Amino acid sequence: MSYNQQCTAEYASRNNLPEFEGVFAKSPQLASPSTKRHRKLFPSLEEAIRTSGLRDGSTVSFHHAFREGDKVLMHVIKTLSDLGFKNLTIAPSSLLNCHDGLVEYIRSGVIAKIFTSGLRGELGEAVSKGLMDVPVQVHSHGGRVHLIQTGEISIDVAFLGVASSDEFGNANGSHGELSCGSLGYAKVDAAHARYVIAMAQELVDFPNYPASLSQDQVDAVVTVDEVGDPSLISVGAARLTKNPRDLLLARIAASVIEHSGSFKTGFSMQTGSGGAATATTIFLGEKMVEKNIKASFALGGVTGPIVDLLNKGMIGAIADVQSFDVTAAQSLRENAAHCEISANEYANSSSKGAYVDRVDVVLLSALEVDIDFNVNVLTGSDGVLRGASGGHCDVAAAANLTVIVTPLLRSRMPCVVEHVNTVVTPGSTVDVVVTDHGIAVNPNNQALEKRLRDAKLPVLSIEELKDLAISRAGKPEPIAYTDKIVAVVRYRDGSVMDVVRQVAR
Amino acid sequence: MSYNQQCTAEYASRNNLPEFEGVFAKSPQLASPSTKRHRKLFPSLEEAIRTSGLRDGSTVSFHHAFREGDKVLMHVIKTLSDLGFKNLTIAPSSLLNCHDGLVEYIRSGVIAKIFTSGLRGELGEAVSKGLMDVPVQVHSHGGRVHLIQTGEISIDVAFLGVASSDEFGNANGSHGELSCGSLGYAKVDAAHARYVIAMAQELVDFPNYPASLSQDQVDAVVTVDEVGDPSLISVGAARLTKNPRDLLLARIAASVIEHSGSFKTGFSMQTGSGGAATATTIFLGEKMVEKNIKASFALGGVTGPIVDLLNKGMIGAIADVQSFDVTAAQSLRENAAHCEISANEYANSSSKGAYVDRVDVVLLSALEVDIDFNVNVLTGSDGVLRGASGGHCDVAAAANLTVIVTPLLRSRMPCVVEHVNTVVTPGSTVDVVVTDHGIAVNPNNQALEKRLRDAKLPVLSIEELKDLAISRAGKPEPIAYTDKIVAVVRYRDGSVMDVVRQVAR
Repeated sequence: MSYNQQCTAEYASRNNLPEFEGVFAKSPQLASPSTKRHRKLFPSLEEAIRTSGLRDGSTVSFHHAFREGDKVLMHVIKTLSDLGFKNLTIAPSSLLNCHDGLVEYIRSGVIAKIFTSGLRGELGEAVSKGLMDVPVQVHSHGGRVHLIQTGEISIDVAFLGVASSDEFGNANGSHGELSCGSLGYAKVDAAHARYVIAMAQELVDFPNYPASLSQDQVDAVVTVDEVGDPSLISVGAARLTKNPRDLLLARIAASVIEHSGSFKTGFSMQTGSGGAATATTIFLGEKMVEKNIKASFALGGVTGPIVDLLNKGMIGAIADVQSFDVTAAQSLRENAAHCEISANEYANSSSKGAYVDRVDVVLLSALEVDIDFNVNVLTGSDGVLRGASGGHCDVAAAANLTVIVTPLLRSRMPCVVEHVNTVVTPGSTVDVVVTDHGIAVNPNNQALEKRLRDAKLPVLSIEELKDLAISRAGKPEPIAYTDKIVAVVRYRDGSVMDVVRQVAR
Repeated sequence: MSYNQQCTAEYASRNNLPEFEGVFAKSPQLASPSTKRHRKLFPSLEEAIRTSGLRDGSTVSFHHAFREGDKVLMHVIKTLSDLGFKNLTIAPSSLLNCHDGLVEYIRSGVIAKIFTSGLRGELGEAVSKGLMDVPVQVHSHGGRVHLIQTGEISIDVAFLGVASSDEFGNANGSHGELSCGSLGYAKVDAAHARYVIAMAQELVDFPNYPASLSQDQVDAVVTVDEVGDPSLISVGAARLTKNPRDLLLARIAASVIEHSGSFKTGFSMQTGSGGAATATTIFLGEKMVEKNIKASFALGGVTGPIVDLLNKGMIGAIADVQSFDVTAAQSLRENAAHCEISANEYANSSSKGAYVDRVDVVLLSALEVDIDFNVNVLTGSDGVLRGASGGHCDVAAAANLTVIVTPLLRSRMPCVVEHVNTVVTPGSTVDVVVTDHGIAVNPNNQALEKRLRDAKLPVLSIEELKDLAISRAGKPEPIAYTDKIVAVVRYRDGSVMDVVRQVAR
């Protein structure tokens, strides 16, 4: 041993540092050329799960970018059930009708607890009727990231469906035959989960780019026959709705935005999906072109009409946490100004900076609005879980102008009511409610009310809207609930906003 | 209070969860429209520093993507000194000649400790002569990320120079007048530092894209007159060197790669910068075109000749942790196949997957190589610190074929020696040493030696090269050192590889 080697050993020992013990001592993955390169590619989901260290009681996560076409979640849960796992917590970014099959796995004890942005269909119905011992925690898209970062949601294994991946886990949702577009929700899971399994529709040559999920986040890669059903991934067709009520709502909403004081070059917007929202985007876009008013950026859930405005040069950039249709997915793939952002960048109030903080105008839907402007997007008029918190309360809280669009009645039930069944978005963050029978402005925004009245828009008070709804549909019977709490509404900051109780039927 | 509100309060209390206390309770940044949007833009560096919570003894970090043109580090240290801070640890990704001025701030007690990949010039000389009480910790590029992730380097405030940023901190190095290209090192600091200050050459409209550093990582944005001197940012000119020795070394190195067995379609490479390396890239590129051998990807430190091969379709993609010239920076801006990667993705052995793991052939330089193939890239033949660990040991450990290129003599001092002054890269990870007087193959790679002999390349034993060097330059006097340790070489896994002692002068 040379004198310098002696000094080295002494220094390490004195400072409690490890001495060099060989190149492979702490990097066993390098010892074999095959392990070095192919260590992440698993022949089956089962083997990846075995390697993941998943146990009874673990938390598993999923993203919902494949929407109603998602085939990943049910496939994984079935596999976990077949492997004998019990008592799992599932933490998908949201749940849709295609996840109705979860009821069976809750009954059989595979799933014990759920965090989600929403639930509906047979699952929502079963949970509302008391299926689970532990209430479902319903969070917003931003709030989910907050709960992950605070550790309340501690993801053991994330199962992330992707359109394409290389064998090292560089993956995206936008390149490949079965494309979902942005992986904005999955990015958060990839960054925080203890073990990440990329489930790829297509395995491509290394290096795959862009790497929406990166090789330094992914532990295992498996290929699957189908991550999703392409015909069900796209939710909003880019063409204009033919529903006359939606068209009316859209015309009024576009006029409200036009006269709100926020409609000027450099403004920013989130308009979302669904018939009325998409129509509003189209009508607003016509006004933008006509008056040459250019937006700095559009945020959200992105649809074809937003992409169209980008391509026309009427929007500077798109920040895309979720691509709602193939047009959006294709634009994300091809246009550098169409940027993929994570849910943390999108909407987390405890991040260092969320895009929602910079939105001027947001258009949001509602199942119910009440006379305090509180919004319910979670439970139906029968008290049953049939919706999702989504980014609703996130962007409402942060945007300068929050516009809620809802028909006055749905299936002869009032949508403007005295008290919403469930508060998801507090009324203080809502500026205006647009219905097909008039609009109501929150009294805390007098300047807006004056502008809309000056523009001859049909402004009523919220109480007048509520009374109008009752006069047309009658006062609904109160919903009968038991005392059992079936779901808890968590606000974006993690606080408890409301609870949903079991329907007594 | 309604019955449901009662249930909500009880649920929260029973489960130790906070109840909703208002939209702004935990999001005070939303209370004012101006704070909401402009909270991160500071009128001066001093104000950002005051807000950062920096204290005596804190750790501050920097990146070296502006290389010899960097003006951020010295500007920040002068500012911290003016503000009266003492006893700081600095953790730049590397230090260059433009940082000579640090000597003064070490003397005055502003700086007490240094983590860096390298040091040279007056600073290297002063440290080698015993300037500091605490030895400098010299890490590799991958090793730095490891030390940050294990917490040994715990960055309080990162000062990150960028070409452009918006006021929310979406920043990059590739878009803007003063472009450095990839922000691969800065990405790590942005992800891990407690407080991140983006120092921007240009403030651009929101949203800036691509966001190499994202708004959810950046706390403060300040503009600076000059983040760097453009004439000094580019290190390797794309044109061919005229130095005959470099050209000779490059011709041999290119032949070695050609006949190594690794030169086939789909291979991957890292060739680095500097006269001989750039020339090798050019010569190798000619062979690739001639034989139509396409590389899957090139990694590294990227130079013009690599970009040229990408543009010719001879390389599938570039993974760029650091752009060495304006051609590389421009390519990163314009070509989707030229991908920006972080130092964690590049080279960290404890990441979930490093690009170096997938490199077939790497070309690396040396200050000294010894008969055990150990490489010194840190200290000169006089024992003085004048180099950098860089990605040297990272990629040597992981690549399938590691080629070291060095002249046999430099300024009449042998570069192939019995024992290197300082071990940075262990000989077991080196396959072949190319000199202008012959090449030596590591005995642990007999197959390679046979291939190179079969190709009539001038293969000698490493001892023969060492003897040849001595026969030409004479045996150098041993360097006189004191017992004081002035620098510690940390291997990529954090272990102590070697120490550098004070030169006795």
